[in-house]
Amino acid sequence: MNNTQPFMLVAGAGAGLGQSLLRRFQAGGYTSIGLVRSLPEGKTDLELRQVDLSHTETASALITELITTYGPPQVVVHNTAQLVIQPFAETTLDDFEQCWQSMVKTAIVVAQSVLEPIVRGGGGAFIVSGATASLRGSAKFSAFASAKFALRGLTQSIAREYQPAGIHVVHTILDGIIDTERSRLLHSLDPAKMLKPEDIAEVYWQLAHQPTSAWSHEIDLRPYTESF
Amino acid sequence: MNNTQPFMLVAGAGAGLGQSLLRRFQAGGYTSIGLVRSLPEGKTDLELRQVDLSHTETASALITELITTYGPPQVVVHNTAQLVIQPFAETTLDDFEQCWQSMVKTAIVVAQSVLEPIVRGGGGAFIVSGATASLRGSAKFSAFASAKFALRGLTQSIAREYQPAGIHVVHTILDGIIDTERSRLLHSLDPAKMLKPEDIAEVYWQLAHQPTSAWSHEIDLRPYTESF
Amino acid sequence: MNNTQPFMLVAGAGAGLGQSLLRRFQAGGYTSIGLVRSLPEGKTDLELRQVDLSHTETASALITELITTYGPPQVVVHNTAQLVIQPFAETTLDDFEQCWQSMVKTAIVVAQSVLEPIVRGGGGAFIVSGATASLRGSAKFSAFASAKFALRGLTQSIAREYQPAGIHVVHTILDGIIDTERSRLLHSLDPAKMLKPEDIAEVYWQLAHQPTSAWSHEIDLRPYTESF
Amino acid sequence: MNNTQPFMLVAGAGAGLGQSLLRRFQAGGYTSIGLVRSLPEGKTDLELRQVDLSHTETASALITELITTYGPPQVVVHNTAQLVIQPFAETTLDDFEQCWQSMVKTAIVVAQSVLEPIVRGGGGAFIVSGATASLRGSAKFSAFASAKFALRGLTQSIAREYQPAGIHVVHTILDGIIDTERSRLLHSLDPAKMLKPEDIAEVYWQLAHQPTSAWSHEIDLRPYTESF
Repeated sequence: MNNTQPFMLVAGAGAGLGQSLLRRFQAGGYTSIGLVRSLPEGKTDLELRQVDLSHTETASALITELITTYGPPQVVVHNTAQLVIQPFAETTLDDFEQCWQSMVKTAIVVAQSVLEPIVRGGGGAFIVSGATASLRGSAKFSAFASAKFALRGLTQSIAREYQPAGIHVVHTILDGIIDTERSRLLHSLDPAKMLKPEDIAEVYWQLAHQPTSAWSHEIDLRPYTESF
Repeated sequence: MNNTQPFMLVAGAGAGLGQSLLRRFQAGGYTSIGLVRSLPEGKTDLELRQVDLSHTETASALITELITTYGPPQVVVHNTAQLVIQPFAETTLDDFEQCWQSMVKTAIVVAQSVLEPIVRGGGGAFIVSGATASLRGSAKFSAFASAKFALRGLTQSIAREYQPAGIHVVHTILDGIIDTERSRLLHSLDPAKMLKPEDIAEVYWQLAHQPTSAWSHEIDLRPYTESF
Repeated sequence: MNNTQPFMLVAGAGAGLGQSLLRRFQAGGYTSIGLVRSLPEGKTDLELRQVDLSHTETASALITELITTYGPPQVVVHNTAQLVIQPFAETTLDDFEQCWQSMVKTAIVVAQSVLEPIVRGGGGAFIVSGATASLRGSAKFSAFASAKFALRGLTQSIAREYQPAGIHVVHTILDGIIDTERSRLLHSLDPAKMLKPEDIAEVYWQLAHQPTSAWSHEIDLRPYTESF
Repeated sequence: MNNTQPFMLVAGAGAGLGQSLLRRFQAGGYTSIGLVRSLPEGKTDLELRQVDLSHTETASALITELITTYGPPQVVVHNTAQLVIQPFAETTLDDFEQCWQSMVKTAIVVAQSVLEPIVRGGGGAFIVSGATASLRGSAKFSAFASAKFALRGLTQSIAREYQPAGIHVVHTILDGIIDTERSRLLHSLDPAKMLKPEDIAEVYWQLAHQPTSAWSHEIDLRPYTESF
């Protein structure tokens, strides 16, 4: 690992999009580090750090330590997820709190740990993964949609505060199921109709490198077969 | 008080919109009861009950007791508010949690206490007060907007689950400052340019009585001078 | 007819919403006049004037004549419609032009004939009927949706110019099929699942009388059974 | 020019974005042809064809002829513009018709000339340039916004019909002033705060090459200094 390489951080680097992002930026010359709630079994070529991002102090301390080692990140992606699908009457307060903690609180903790260093480091990109439920509260999605809506509002507010200071803030709408081993088990959907994590990662790479004259704030992505 | 009157509940019945709602529905023949975090000083002609709506068990027990006494409510308004305006870097996790608890958690607790009784009672209306920040995360509004966005996603999800069962679910966008004694002190704005709580209350009355053939889900309200 | 009554004009007063509006405002003490492309057969108790609103000069002259007789209108509703549903490949330029002329051009002609008189007359309301297709361009709706989108953009622009001058400008989203003799023949839909024109008319009445402290700009209306 | 190269067509290839697109795709190995209302003075290295796209038959014939020569295009960009900024009361019907004809009618004509050939050719991309006014009808923008709204509705409808058939349909929101010689004269804006046409062209290149697993339908682009 080379300290002079640009540093890229993925908060929520499970199998799927998170790890494809680490690989894409690594291939592009970045030191890519992923924060995960639990380390995968077996060996991996990826740089992963185990941390519960909703433990504010632990998470902040780890990120600060990484910044000390690698410098301020040039690209940070927030990509944690916690899907809850059930009728509102059966959704407990704990479900709502879990969704909020795992998707909103973690974004707050990460953003507050990286934004000021990125400004001091001369700018960078902060990309947040949203979903269909960021725009639409469907039946049975009350816990998930309310957290994803919250994350979108937070991201917009951060964009309006930090873009003039040189941080490109992006919110993506991932409108479809991401193709992972787990989603193939969960959904009886033709994998050809799923979002490929490496294709999304390529778009994040492009977004992270948009010149300051042409920044996207919100962009949707869906398989060509997905109705919308 | 007359047990055969329709019952109307306002969660968040402070001075301003909450109390204007109680008065409007009382004038229309409802038994109107307001839930407040702290009782106002002095006498009031309004029926107010002190409760911290984020204390799930206490709040649920009180609402259940009210339903036992007055029957399922025909109209429930969620109208709690907690405004935080400050740069993201100065906004603490506690600010975010306070905003979420006071505006989102309370809506969950109230909704889970009233929706099934309303269905069993034959239908009714559930109206949630949103704000400009429900649609737009402005600079310095990260905590407030993320909670208001969450509340909007929650309300949409509830609408899609409960409208077919006869509960009219409405989300309002209150785009402007509501004229109260407190807001006159806080804002150096001509009161003629503020939303009058009694005018908003009239619209809520109309919404609560829309026939099933023509239900609004989202409606904005602003003073005619407000730019948008 | 009494010249001291407030004057209300409906552009597009066919059977259904247009005529229900005339009746509702007539019942409320207005002189209500409807502009129609073709007069209905048989007698009617409504005041209807035949005019092709896309004939700019004829239409402007008629409206100006009405204003000379009745004074500036206090309420104007634009409610013309021309539905085209077919694949884009089969939709001719003529279809697009017809949709634009019948829904957008007519709104321009009416607005330019009434807005300045309304301002001079001390204010009033200008309400435009939109549809689901005002927000969403669905498959097979290219001609209709592009015209309805155009009408929405136009209405927003008019709102931002004329609200400070005292004209309340509203755009409604009528999300469902309006129950008329004709729609019952065209659609095999349970009439209980249709928007009742008299219920919509009541909402327009309420919108037209919102006090200046609390004006709605956009409001959706749908039967409680309609999914959205 | 090489007939085996992929063919790319820009409808509206004036100085600025249109010509940057031709250059970007030319550099990427495409035969890039621009349709312009009037040919620029002096020599150019670009392949430009003069045509009034609102002359349906002439325009269709020319596009059909190009397809006969170069095969179905793999990328088509609609990028015509006609800006009108003036109060509604001073905006004539002719202004509205000009805006509609130059931005909406031209898109219809181009789309109807290329979409079926693209399907038969195995797929491709159809990208439409929108603007801030595609989402918001501001004061003084009635003619421009109503046309841009119409174009967005049209594009959505085309997307929903043609994406399953393999045509990637994109609508961009260009939120800012594009840096051209002409816009530097018109606007007293620091060029560093303008959208660079070559930066937008790069994004269009990326969009045109998104794999079928991850298609964007709408994407905004603005200079980092632009408030939104």
